[in-house]
Amino acid sequence: MRELRKIEIKGIDENVLSNAQKRVDELIKPKGSLGKMEELYVKLSGILGTTVPDISKKAIVVFAADHGIFEEGIAVTPREVTAIQAVNMTKGLTGVCAFAKCAGAEVKVVDMGIDAEIECDAIYHSKLMPHGTDNMTKGPAMPRDIAIRAVEKGRDMARLAYDEGVRVLGVGEMGIGNTTPSAAIVSVIGGYEPAEVTGIGANLPVSQVPKKIDVIKRAIEINKPDPMDGVDVLSKVGGLDIGGMAGLIIGAAEVGIPVVIDGFISYAAAMVAFTIEPGIKPYIITSHCSKEKGALKALEWLEMGYHLDLDLRLGEGTGAAIMFTILDHALAMSRYMPTFEEAGFRVD
Amino acid sequence: MRELRKIEIKGIDENVLSNAQKRVDELIKPKGSLGKMEELYVKLSGILGTTVPDISKKAIVVFAADHGIFEEGIAVTPREVTAIQAVNMTKGLTGVCAFAKCAGAEVKVVDMGIDAEIECDAIYHSKLMPHGTDNMTKGPAMPRDIAIRAVEKGRDMARLAYDEGVRVLGVGEMGIGNTTPSAAIVSVIGGYEPAEVTGIGANLPVSQVPKKIDVIKRAIEINKPDPMDGVDVLSKVGGLDIGGMAGLIIGAAEVGIPVVIDGFISYAAAMVAFTIEPGIKPYIITSHCSKEKGALKALEWLEMGYHLDLDLRLGEGTGAAIMFTILDHALAMSRYMPTFEEAGFRVD
Repeated sequence: MRELRKIEIKGIDENVLSNAQKRVDELIKPKGSLGKMEELYVKLSGILGTTVPDISKKAIVVFAADHGIFEEGIAVTPREVTAIQAVNMTKGLTGVCAFAKCAGAEVKVVDMGIDAEIECDAIYHSKLMPHGTDNMTKGPAMPRDIAIRAVEKGRDMARLAYDEGVRVLGVGEMGIGNTTPSAAIVSVIGGYEPAEVTGIGANLPVSQVPKKIDVIKRAIEINKPDPMDGVDVLSKVGGLDIGGMAGLIIGAAEVGIPVVIDGFISYAAAMVAFTIEPGIKPYIITSHCSKEKGALKALEWLEMGYHLDLDLRLGEGTGAAIMFTILDHALAMSRYMPTFEEAGFRVD
Repeated sequence: MRELRKIEIKGIDENVLSNAQKRVDELIKPKGSLGKMEELYVKLSGILGTTVPDISKKAIVVFAADHGIFEEGIAVTPREVTAIQAVNMTKGLTGVCAFAKCAGAEVKVVDMGIDAEIECDAIYHSKLMPHGTDNMTKGPAMPRDIAIRAVEKGRDMARLAYDEGVRVLGVGEMGIGNTTPSAAIVSVIGGYEPAEVTGIGANLPVSQVPKKIDVIKRAIEINKPDPMDGVDVLSKVGGLDIGGMAGLIIGAAEVGIPVVIDGFISYAAAMVAFTIEPGIKPYIITSHCSKEKGALKALEWLEMGYHLDLDLRLGEGTGAAIMFTILDHALAMSRYMPTFEEAGFRVD
């Protein structure tokens, strides 16, 4: 039986953390008055192992896949949109591409299991199931072996980006129907009732949300995923896109770079990643608070706040891309603000 | 008796607003799924009168002044810091300068009444009171005539920036002690008890907050400002910096460009500006939710949300500078995302 490759995480450099905290405390401002910007600078320093971190090379990795659960009528967007938008991602023609361009980030697209033959050299081809996952109300979404390969692919993408010089990653996805497995994951791992964490996704009419909740309940009931086993949850009620995202988060921690998560689907991926390896947590940076129902519950479980309050619920990695620019500001703070001493104040 | 120059606001172009809304609804994403980013694009379009607004030229105007109320012991930062930091602003050596540099914005500094002779050509000199305001627990902070001139100076700065090609303004300030008049203003205009809206400012020990509240209560009691008269409130319990900020907001509306407010002090300025002329409201864009106590109350009174949740409480215009980059992303959305039709989807 295939198992995940051993996960090795060096851990945050506590010495750099405390030096960065010292620097930020000495900057010419009331101590603590730049709040989360200070925390972000300290965190970036600790992760990257230097008090002058350089995140000029940025990338969002978008994992695209289709979902067998689509046939239960849990989404109103046509299923073909996954394939069309995956290709549009490579042409700069999506929401995340617009924001990534503005933030100076590259977008990489991985076909994890789109239900279409895709002729596009700009896509990373890793189709683990030719038609996407199976319908999770009738059995596991994917075999355990495939779930492991999905996570491994995400880890590989982090390594590849790192080798190209990327020093901050963002998590993105494209997969019509993928808020359904995400809600299932958040429900199972977080211990929430499906109704508490199931929203409208991409504009599902509110009248159809009870059906979506019922689908999630049935999927959990028939599969009985083990909330302590991230791979089990992923394989039974997850998605190939979500598996890649969880892997990217783990991989970022392995290569020692920060990974910015996006909205609800990436919260689910982070919960899977955390369940597989809790040591990933310090490498995660949140972006926005998704407007999708259940977002706050997932963030609560992850014990994480957020930085942007923009009512986003598009996914793709849009919030992560916007967040990149906030990180640039945090580094500008440390780079351009002098300490009281440097500015010529008498320090008593 | 001097009166404010007549305020003339053209108003938002409803036609452009609806065209921008139509464009944003047609972009390749579930309708409404980019939340406040969509609203920001529509708002910028309406204010600037075009669905392809250009805000490449940005400026933060920092109004600096000292406060007579300082002598009541409501701040722990030395009073000299106002003058030192005003000069540092011109050298790029402050928090707002760091963020403005990252956001591609200029910082303009106006001496509205710093208690020091300042030899610095890079500062706009408009010292309306040589030692800053008077102690408002003993009478009005400034004569009504001076309050009017403070507002006029702010309006002039907006016009000057506009004439230089600036198409988005940010509101900043530097004035040791200025959360005290700000809390007084929010209390008077908003109808809140001083204790509800008085915080620690620049790290005032919590044990001294009751004294600060008492100072504010006494200032309101002795001056009896009229909450319906913004100039009266400003002159009796306000500040020269806050007057300039209120003027900048009014001036931005007059020249027809967006103005991004910052934290607690700028909320107070916005409340003064709104009381003087409610027609300014559509021109205001909020940035972050200040960590200063009373911030949510002020935003509630203004009926405005926020976009950044960064626990900032430095002031200077730091949050406004960061917000500039969010506005750039909102415009990138409209510029780089195609409509469904442009992207080749069949539109039924």
